[in-house]
Order: sequence, then structure tokens, then C-alpha cells
Amino acid sequence: MEGVDFLAGERRKAEFDVDEMKIVWAGSRHAFQLSDRISKLVAGDPAFRKDDRTMMPRKELFKNTLRKASYAWKRINELRLTEEEATKLRFYVDEPAFSDLHWGMFIPAIKGSGTQEQQQKWLPLAYKMQIIGCYAQTELGHGSNVQGLETTATFDPQTDEFIIHSPTLTSSKWWPGGLGKVATHAIVYARLITEGKDHGVNGFIVQLRSLEDHKPLPGITVGDIGTKFGNGAYNTMDNGVLRLDHVRIPRDQMLMRVSQVTREGKYVQSDIPRQILYGTMVFVRQSIVSDASSALSRAVCIATRYSAIRRQFGSQNGGEETQVIDYKTQQNRLFRLLASAYAFRFVGEWLKWLYTDVTQKLQAGDFSTLPEVHACTAGLKSLTTTATSDGIEECRKLCGGHGYLCSSGLPELFAVYVPTCTYEGDNIVLLLQVARVLVKTVSQLGSGKPPVGTIAYMGRVEHLMTCCSKVTQAKDWLNPTAVLEAFEARAVRMTVSCAKNLSEFANREEGFAELSADLVEAAVAHCQLIVVSKFLEKLQQDIPGKGVREQLEALCGIYSLFLLHKHQGDFLSTNYITPQQASLANDQLRSLYTQVRPNAIALVDAFNYTDHFLGSVLGRYDGNVYPKLYEEAWKDPLNDSVLPDGYHEYIRPLLNQQLLSARL
Amino acid sequence: MEGVDFLAGERRKAEFDVDEMKIVWAGSRHAFQLSDRISKLVAGDPAFRKDDRTMMPRKELFKNTLRKASYAWKRINELRLTEEEATKLRFYVDEPAFSDLHWGMFIPAIKGSGTQEQQQKWLPLAYKMQIIGCYAQTELGHGSNVQGLETTATFDPQTDEFIIHSPTLTSSKWWPGGLGKVATHAIVYARLITEGKDHGVNGFIVQLRSLEDHKPLPGITVGDIGTKFGNGAYNTMDNGVLRLDHVRIPRDQMLMRVSQVTREGKYVQSDIPRQILYGTMVFVRQSIVSDASSALSRAVCIATRYSAIRRQFGSQNGGEETQVIDYKTQQNRLFRLLASAYAFRFVGEWLKWLYTDVTQKLQAGDFSTLPEVHACTAGLKSLTTTATSDGIEECRKLCGGHGYLCSSGLPELFAVYVPTCTYEGDNIVLLLQVARVLVKTVSQLGSGKPPVGTIAYMGRVEHLMTCCSKVTQAKDWLNPTAVLEAFEARAVRMTVSCAKNLSEFANREEGFAELSADLVEAAVAHCQLIVVSKFLEKLQQDIPGKGVREQLEALCGIYSLFLLHKHQGDFLSTNYITPQQASLANDQLRSLYTQVRPNAIALVDAFNYTDHFLGSVLGRYDGNVYPKLYEEAWKDPLNDSVLPDGYHEYIRPLLNQQLLSARL
Repeated sequence: MEGVDFLAGERRKAEFDVDEMKIVWAGSRHAFQLSDRISKLVAGDPAFRKDDRTMMPRKELFKNTLRKASYAWKRINELRLTEEEATKLRFYVDEPAFSDLHWGMFIPAIKGSGTQEQQQKWLPLAYKMQIIGCYAQTELGHGSNVQGLETTATFDPQTDEFIIHSPTLTSSKWWPGGLGKVATHAIVYARLITEGKDHGVNGFIVQLRSLEDHKPLPGITVGDIGTKFGNGAYNTMDNGVLRLDHVRIPRDQMLMRVSQVTREGKYVQSDIPRQILYGTMVFVRQSIVSDASSALSRAVCIATRYSAIRRQFGSQNGGEETQVIDYKTQQNRLFRLLASAYAFRFVGEWLKWLYTDVTQKLQAGDFSTLPEVHACTAGLKSLTTTATSDGIEECRKLCGGHGYLCSSGLPELFAVYVPTCTYEGDNIVLLLQVARVLVKTVSQLGSGKPPVGTIAYMGRVEHLMTCCSKVTQAKDWLNPTAVLEAFEARAVRMTVSCAKNLSEFANREEGFAELSADLVEAAVAHCQLIVVSKFLEKLQQDIPGKGVREQLEALCGIYSLFLLHKHQGDFLSTNYITPQQASLANDQLRSLYTQVRPNAIALVDAFNYTDHFLGSVLGRYDGNVYPKLYEEAWKDPLNDSVLPDGYHEYIRPLLNQQLLSARL
Repeated sequence: MEGVDFLAGERRKAEFDVDEMKIVWAGSRHAFQLSDRISKLVAGDPAFRKDDRTMMPRKELFKNTLRKASYAWKRINELRLTEEEATKLRFYVDEPAFSDLHWGMFIPAIKGSGTQEQQQKWLPLAYKMQIIGCYAQTELGHGSNVQGLETTATFDPQTDEFIIHSPTLTSSKWWPGGLGKVATHAIVYARLITEGKDHGVNGFIVQLRSLEDHKPLPGITVGDIGTKFGNGAYNTMDNGVLRLDHVRIPRDQMLMRVSQVTREGKYVQSDIPRQILYGTMVFVRQSIVSDASSALSRAVCIATRYSAIRRQFGSQNGGEETQVIDYKTQQNRLFRLLASAYAFRFVGEWLKWLYTDVTQKLQAGDFSTLPEVHACTAGLKSLTTTATSDGIEECRKLCGGHGYLCSSGLPELFAVYVPTCTYEGDNIVLLLQVARVLVKTVSQLGSGKPPVGTIAYMGRVEHLMTCCSKVTQAKDWLNPTAVLEAFEARAVRMTVSCAKNLSEFANREEGFAELSADLVEAAVAHCQLIVVSKFLEKLQQDIPGKGVREQLEALCGIYSLFLLHKHQGDFLSTNYITPQQASLANDQLRSLYTQVRPNAIALVDAFNYTDHFLGSVLGRYDGNVYPKLYEEAWKDPLNDSVLPDGYHEYIRPLLNQQLLSARL
């Protein structure tokens, strides 16, 4: 049955131009062509095979990743790929590797926090990978609270050096990717101590391993921190532990863009404001949001295609059973995730714009939008990564038992994705930061300083506190104004209610701690509003292609109405809608499912994923699932022999009742 | 620091008698002593070590499980353990193995569906493990819909045999544990065909492998289906694939308790009603609910202990940072899971009683309670396993980054637990079955046949449709009557609303399909009511021990009020409570957290888990987390050598810029 497209019938049902949707999804024609070309290049090269990954023991797995990363770098050079193309290539190789941190953290840290001189010295080495860097911030005992790091960098004016030291076990650097086995250098974050004073956490470039023989330098203890969640997943990465025993580095290896230590040991701030560093954070978080839409869309693509192949129940007169995608319970779980993938895509795109905007403002010395931008990126990082983790696991469950096989690709996708909820800011901690900005905004509303950006709606607090939904029939919920006002009113009212409850505490911080669960909910309401509003804004743009806009409108409707239903308690308790209106939203949601159903396969085809990238037997483009599942099974090492290792020692004596005399 | 109890301070804070709570948790003094003795026996035997499990390649892992399973059986015989003790021992060995299916499915199937003669022939062999059995029902193309199985068992009157056959690829048996490499026999479910007629699915005992050399018998293709989610997890199990090519078995290997095929090939029903088989299903599901409380409590124990060790932020004047368990956001996520673990424990205990009760009724020919019992067990299986899967992952996230390490024990616990949501009835399919019973009950309310058991409250529909919550202050929500009525009113109103909406459809089945998402929500409301009501009933019992009852009351309050908050949309939209009353519930919830906080460590100590069983560095009884995490890291195979395998081939040429000439 090779060559047959079992999903051809589904594809014929589509009521829109899939090729145009691919461009909408990619963001531009250029972006589409780039992704299309590079993903096919990777998929077509057997050196990037990854279907054997979940069966490899750790050492073999890690060695294989070293091979792929080096080979990728070789190809990048041979093909003279641009930086944009190289980044895409690493993305489609789809395997966490030391090089991710080198390019994604080490180099940006030097660019962001290094002086011109430091950049000129270190970046050429890094760009050619003559050194390999990692980013050593987190410690065994200290994660979210960066200010609590214990590692010290004490300036020694006698030798003009810093002495980098791990004073305790809990100050061991712990988690940095690439550190365990590969990196030659690290940006080590440590408390700067000079003239007997602690000046807080700064970054230092520390060489870890000899460039001759790769052995750790004196005073350095370094290794891998052990096996992590999942079969392959992040076990391809050497997340590491690092202890520093009075390691000396030259003074000029402190990253000195915003603060310096002079030859005499004086700590001085440069005239470059610290806030400039926030630009990097916005950049990192916007890529996380963009990656969320990639990860969720992969899972949704797999679950959607397989839901059209899988049949269960409903057979009449010996005919075929019903495709599970036709069940409303399946649609209710799946289509909201499909809609979320598109929603996150568009909010990610907008964040890219925001990054450019804020960078320009920072360079012009305008820091006015920073708190809002910070809240917005923090909140969206939290919202999209939590929804994506949960969504991947939901997609796995939507594939029934077979989703539990590694050959479905979903266990691997989940295990590799979930740390995103924790790194770059724990998702709950981030929401509390958002909440702080929100209640502060509310408290300053009368001050004549109108809120900006994504918080601007709070300026309309009087209207939003008193208005009520005007929806009288289900289709009224398709009106963007009706939806937007609902989400705005809910977010404002929850924030105002928190602010009011906070004001009853004599000690504001105590109040904040006590009410933190409510504050988190208000922050979620605010972040969901941002996603909904950016989806609606997207629909204001010119969208070419037959039927494309209609599909996106339906998905936007599903995204917002499923949220409205899920959180109807918020909308009802703040009295913006009545139970009747909530019920109408639910009716509309159901009819949107019906509208999306014939387009479902085409909507996931629009992601333009190769079978290599998907890495899933269940999500195959041609839908030829069962023969391939069967084929995959036989590749397991356990099937190498008819009798399993251990038969003679353990099974045979048991069956023969000779166990009591056997040595086990 | 060996021997120091870092949690001693926490333990001193407890306001109740932990030893008495241990007995409440275990169910009885006998059950406590049994668990305590056997868990220590397993923990003290180095042969049962499991901390190396996540680092083993599949073949080694599997061989190691064969060793443990055989050794366990040897010890069971040496120590002359009772069946109860042996079951406990297998539980505490805590590693999925072929023997689980032998004892848990193969033997019960023969007991439940075999005739007296068949039991006399097969059970003694099975009890001594002279044969090893598995349970082959699910097929590659057929899971939930058992009636859709394709495997055939055609009677051949000439030879007095059945011909068991897999007519298609999708009819391959797929998933049975123990099948892949170990089982000598299987109960194969197949469509019985005799005299040219299809009589539906029946069970047949089929020998798979030679008892001489363990090789598959002629006509049998059998193997492992490949790697599954997680590092160790279910990869210790040989879930298998089986194809049968016209395999002949004697007629007396059809399980003939409820239907037979005569020598002439006549299909006859015995006078034993089919319903008798439901007893087994109730039994299996009650153990799943009971296992849910075990799995969730393990995760909660780990997360609670580590939350008391982990400190982040809040340091003042260089003092220690705040224990993360003191943050309300942490409490809000953790304590609801702690409360859920206790809630599931008690509902599981009640289900045990229900099983005894229904067995007696079935034996007396009384099938009147069956639909209700079926709905109740199906619903509770669904509710508790979904909440437990999500809860384990939430506990992992509550441990921050370190929860992602296998040494935290949580990835393994999650990966091994999640299939429970799919097997023995997909959780959504089960909820739809519950919903069917609920709407049927509503439609028959006027018929004079009062609803029984857990649905009895629907008999008070008139009151429950019109009453309103009388809560006027937060502490009113501690009143059991107030809580119970709220959950009853919500469940009835959601069901009645569904029934009303259904009645508007001309075709009832179409309506059921269209409204299935709402029906699922109504079923969830009903199941949550059962759990809440059984917790409240538990509190009616005599509970000895200082402070024990008070703790359970607080946990029951947390369980019900967190549900009320999470689903406040249901309570508000059905007009049972006002937004003000919802807000009071939330206030009460917060003060219950404060009440539980000093008792948290003691409440997880009451589970009485050994460090071996927990299998978690983060959850260690003594709280000595960081030194042990550090120690564990170095055991990873990647740390066997300073230079990683692949350094010379891939890293060195890269650093030396000799990559372009290297062969990769």
C-alpha cells in the first residue's frame, strides 16, 4: 500500500487554499520557502535519521547527537548557509544538543553583556566554534531567584584576577546544557566581590576544559547531572554540574558592558542602563512563544491525522466504524488545540514585532514601555508553554493506546517540551510578576498616566466595570467586538477585585502572598485576552487565498469561545454574562466544530511538516498507519532474538519448577 | 550529614497522631501491618534495587525485570507468603512485569469465565506458574470497541477444534503485557463462528510457546511492540503483538461458563447470566481506583517533602530563603492534590465494599443495582485516573527543574501511570457511559422506580432543582450538608439540562452525539459528587487518634472547595450559588491551607512509604536532598569517562577546524 494516500479523501474536503494558508502560517512567503527548503534538506539526509533515537542507551544516544551536531555544522559550512538558514537547519534536525546553548545563550550573552572589545575577542572564536560555550547560571540550590546565587567572583587586585569559587554544595552550577561533557567555556554567573563588598550577580567568561585534550582545567569539577524525563528527549544533552575551586580568570573576562571593575578593584556602573539587557529577555521569550506554536502544532498534526484514520464504534450492518474525528468529544478536545496552535502562532509573530519595537525604544533611551513589555512577554511565555505541555499530552491521549508507543512521536515530544514550563522563569512565578504589574496599573489609574500597550484597555475601566454582554443569540458570539469586550471586562474585573482585596491588608506584601492564587488567575485572564486580541487583530489584516480568512475566523472563534466556556466561572461571577449567554457561546462553539471538521486535515497540512520532522507513525502524511506501526515494532532490540536474554536463567527454571534451587 | 533528619522540625509541628493516621490510610490495623512488613522486606533486599532502572538499555532492563519477577516468586515460595502477602510484595517491587498479567488478568479470566472443569485443569498449572498466561483482547485496529474485534475462532466439527485466525493486519493482537517474550498461554478473544454464524466475541485459551524450548508454536507470530513512554516505566514489560495463522485448539479451550459450543457445533447459552461477568469488571476497576490513590500519594509525598526543603526568594538580611511550601501558590496546587489522594483512598475503600455487595447480589440473582454500579465504577475509574495523571505531572512541576531528573522519581511515576487513563476503558468513553445512565435515570424519575445507590439523590430532584445555597459566611462552607447539597444540586441540574436539550432532537442518538461534551461534564459533576459524599461519609465513622478527624475534615474541605472553585461556572450557571458565595468558598479554602500547612509533612508520612518505594531523591524521608542529588548524578553512564565517546571523532575536529575534511 506504499504510495497510496489514505487521507486523500479528507484533503479533498478542504474548503480553502492550503498553499496560501501555509504562507499565513509561516508568516511570509520568504519564511515559508526557507522552512520548506531546509526542512526537506534535513528530511532527505539519512545522517539526520531520528527514528532509532528512543531505543538507544544514553552513551550511544549522546555520541549520536555529537555526530549529528558536528555533521550539521559541516553541512552549514559546505552549503555556505546564512545564519537564518543555519538556525532553521538546527531547528529541523530536532535534537537538543550542546550547540543550542552555544548559539542560543553563550553568543547572545557575550553580544548583550560584553563590551566592544570583549565581543571582538570572543565572538570570532565562537562563530567558528573554535571554542564551545555554555551558560552557567542556575545552581543546585537556586533556580528562579537569580539574586540568591552563591557562587562568588572575588577580585584579587594583586594579580588583577577574579577568583571564581563554589563555596557550598548548593552553589554547584546545575543544569546548564553543554556543560557536562562538551563546552570549553562557560558564562558563569557569580556574586561579584571587590573591596570586601558584594555587588550582586554578574557574568564571567570561564574556560572549563583544555583546548588541547579537552580535560577539565585545574580547580574545575564537571560532569553530567544524569538521566532526565523521556527516552531520547533531553538525554541527548549533557546538562551539567560544575564546581569551581578558587579558579582564577583575568579581570577582562568579566562581562563589562553595564558594570566594570577597574584595575584598582573599584566597582563602577557604565552609562549604559541595565534595562538594555531586557532586550535579550524579550528576544528569548518571543522565541519560546514561537516554539510553543511549533510544538503544539506538531502534536495537533499527529492527533488530527490519526483521528481521521482511527475508527471505533458506530459500525452499522457490518460497514466501517466511525472515524474518531467525527465524535464531538474528540472535536471538543482536539479542535481547541488546533485553534490554540494558530493563536500562539500569531501572538508569537506579534511578539517578534514587539521585540523590534522595544529594541528601538531602548536604544533611543525610552524605557517607558518596559514594565508592560516585560509583563506581556512573561505572561505569554507562561500561558503558551503551559497550554502547549498540557496540549501535547492531551493529543497523546487523543491517540488512545497507540499514543503511548514511542513510534507515535508524542512521548518524545512531551518529554522534550515540558521543561519549557520551568526554565526561563517558572510559569507561576512569571504570572505573579504579571499580576504585580496589573494591580499596580489599577492603583495608578487615577494618576493621569494612561496604561499603554497590552494593558491600555484598563484605561477604559469605568466602562468595562459596568458594561454587560449584549449577546442574544449564538451567532452574536462571532462578533469580534462582543468577544473582545467579554475578555477585557473579565480581566479588568478580576484585577480590580484583587486590588480591592489587597487594600484590606495592612501589609501589602502579606496581602500579595495571601491572595497569590487569585492574582495568578487574574494574570491568566489578562494573558488570554492578549492572545485573543492579537488573533482578532490578525484577522483585520489583508489575508489572501480562497477561504483562508473564513478558516481563521472559525479558529479564532473556537479559541475564544472554548476559553470562555472553560472559564465561564470568571465571566459569570464578574457578572459580565448571564448563564444563558454562556450557554449560547457553547452552542456556537459546537457549530464551529462542525464548520472546521471537513477542513481539519488541510489545516494541519498547512503546517507543512515533513514526516521526518513529525517523527510519528500515527501522524504520517499518507495515513498509512497500521502497516508502519507493525513494521516499527519489529525494530525493537527486544525482537533481536526469539528467546529473550534471561530466558535460561529466569523463565525456564520457573516453568520447570526448579526455581528454588536456582541462583538468582 | 547522614543520619540527620532535615525534616524533624516539620514533623514536630504536626498536630495529630501520625501513627493513628497511618492506620486510617491503610484501611485497618491489619492492612497497615501487612503493608509495613512487606514494604520493608522489599526495601531491605538489594535484589529489588531499582534506582539504576532509568539508565538501562531496553534489553538489559527487561532481563533485569525477569530476574526480579522470578526472584520475587522464589521469595514468595521460600517465605510461604499468603496470596494477600504475595500481592503486596509484587506491589512493592514496583516494576511492571509479565507476572502482573498472569495473576491479574489470566487467572481471573479463567476463574470468571471458565467452567468448573476448566478451572480444575488450568488453575493449578497457573498457580504454580508451570504455565504463564496473558490476556489478548485488544487488536491493532480495535481498542475500546470490543465488539469490533476481527480475530476469528471457527469451529471445525470434523476435528472438534477451533481454528483461531487473524484475518487482517488490523486484527493482530496488540498491547497484551507478557505476550511479547514470556507468556506460554493467552486468553485470546475472538469472534466465535460455528454453523456459519457469528456469535460474537468469546475467550479461548491458546498455547503460544513450546513448554520445552519456549519457541512460538506453528502458525504463531509473536513479538514485542516496541519502546514506550518513559525511561524504565512500562519498558520492563513485553507488551506484545500476536498473529495467528489458522491455529487449532481443542474445543474445550473455549471458556464455557456462560456459553458453550457442543460437540456438534451448536452454540448454546448456559443458564448462568452474562451479567455475572460484571463482577470481575467491578473488581478490576476498584483496584484501579485504589491504585490511583497510591500513585497520587507517592507523587504528593515527594513534592510535599521537597517543598519543605526547597527555599526560594524571601531572604531578608542574608537569612535563609522561604521554604516554597510556605507560598500560597504552592499550597494552592499541592494541598488540593494531598486532599485528592486522601479522597481517592476513601472512595477506593468504599468501592471494595461495593464489590462485595454486588458480588453477593449477583450470586443471589439480583441484577437490579448493576446499571448504577457499572456507572459508578466506570465514572470513578475515569475521574481518579485522570486526576492522578495530571496530579503526578503537577507534582513534578511543583519540584521545579529537579523534578525533571529521573532521580526525582516523578518522570518514571508519570510515564508508568498515564496508560491507566486509556486501558480498561478510555476515560472519555467511560464518562459517556455514565452520562447515559444519568439521563436515563432522569427520564424515568416519574415512573415510580426510585433511583438507587449513588444516583439515589436524583429522587430528590424537585428539591434539588429549586433550592439555593444558604451560605452567608466563609465558615458555613465547612458544613457537610451545605457542601453535599451544592454538589447534588449541580449534578442534578446539569443532567436535567442535558436531558432537556436532548429531548429537542428528533433522533436521540444524534442528540447524544451532538451534546456529548456537555454530557461528559454532567458525568464529571456526578462522579465528583460521589467522591465528596464518600469522604463525608467516612467522617461520620468513628475515627480514633488525637487530631486525626480534624485533619481529615480539613482535607475533605479542601477537596470539595477546590472543586467548587475550579468548577464555579457550573455552580453559578445553575444558579445554586451566588458569586458572593463562590468567593466565600475561596476564602475558606485559603484558611484551610493555613490549617493544613503545619501538618503537611506528617500527612504524607502517614502514607508510610519507604524510600525504596518512593524511589525519589527529592522525596527522601530525611530530606537530605542536595548531597544525594549530587551523588546520584555521578552514577550516570555518561560520567564513566572524562572524555565522552565521540570526542575524538566529532568534537576535536570541530574545535580544531578540521571538520570539513573529517568523515562523519
